[in-house]
Amino acid sequence: MKIIIVGATGTLGKHVTNALAKEHEVIKAGSKSGDITLDITSPASIESFFKQTGVFDALISITGKGHFGPLATMTDADFRIGIDSKLMGQINLVLIGQHYINPKGSFTLTSGILSEDPIVLGANLSAVNGAIEAFVRAAAIELNNNVRINAISPGVVEDSPGFFPYFQGHIPVTMERVTQAYIKSALGALTGQVIKVF
Amino acid sequence: MKIIIVGATGTLGKHVTNALAKEHEVIKAGSKSGDITLDITSPASIESFFKQTGVFDALISITGKGHFGPLATMTDADFRIGIDSKLMGQINLVLIGQHYINPKGSFTLTSGILSEDPIVLGANLSAVNGAIEAFVRAAAIELNNNVRINAISPGVVEDSPGFFPYFQGHIPVTMERVTQAYIKSALGALTGQVIKVF
Repeated sequence: MKIIIVGATGTLGKHVTNALAKEHEVIKAGSKSGDITLDITSPASIESFFKQTGVFDALISITGKGHFGPLATMTDADFRIGIDSKLMGQINLVLIGQHYINPKGSFTLTSGILSEDPIVLGANLSAVNGAIEAFVRAAAIELNNNVRINAISPGVVEDSPGFFPYFQGHIPVTMERVTQAYIKSALGALTGQVIKVF
Repeated sequence: MKIIIVGATGTLGKHVTNALAKEHEVIKAGSKSGDITLDITSPASIESFFKQTGVFDALISITGKGHFGPLATMTDADFRIGIDSKLMGQINLVLIGQHYINPKGSFTLTSGILSEDPIVLGANLSAVNGAIEAFVRAAAIELNNNVRINAISPGVVEDSPGFFPYFQGHIPVTMERVTQAYIKSALGALTGQVIKVF
């Protein structure tokens, strides 16, 4: 299979890439590094990206920024960081990528635990993650040619101790569990699912 | 109580306004009609709006557009209709309104059944509704001075037969049930809840 991994050089992206590269053709994509670079906040950049990749069988997105900060001082511009990057970036990978994906292909997006289990400072990411999860449920019933779509919703991951103080009482999940969730979505048969890893 | 209803002159807004106007001071707001007009897609318009209303006790938002159309031809621009109107419009009412609301006040936003029960053509509204619902869960744990926030998630409403063909197998909900959900949120004590009316 020809698998595109957007965010392949991130902490989690590296693990997913390593798990898939042995048996599949993996195209590593990122904002600054990888086989091909793209700016997910730009639909034109995404269109140009798919023209370079050509048709593919699976796309895994493990990318996208959000704003992390207090609600009391949050502005429209702050909130748009997550909207333009983690939300519209991933959704445009699907809206544009649907015209390049092979029949029976799959999209796997990334949401996160904050959609249902919020933390202080996390309102922007909660909203973005909630949107991604509802989007995959809706897109799954419209994608043509048996193309599938799921979201992976990780809890705080063991390799990110910098986040632990913000996730009091959360039990970090192993990188192995999160990695396997992406494999389950891309190589399995589920569609329209939020695969929770927490 | 001084209650702002944004979208007061819409079908549902009229019912909520009528139910509250007997015992409360209601400020009717809308894009084209009402006591004060505002453009929810513009943070500057929202700021100017609250300067006119002054401090208030409850804000009920029953407003916001989304894009309704096939996923197969959906573009970034289509998707942004719901992002800029129903999503960021309502979120900016909270981000800006939090600086004008009285202690123990409340925000009530509108999401909808498509966040969890999608229909064909509804991917944009599914995503927007999912974002609103996750946002109220997150905002509820950060709002100061005991200010509350909830979302009302209506199913297809009996007064909107034009939508029925798109909601096959959905049992329309009564306007009375939907209206009372807004009353429950604004005059009750719940916070961080999605009040489902379907």
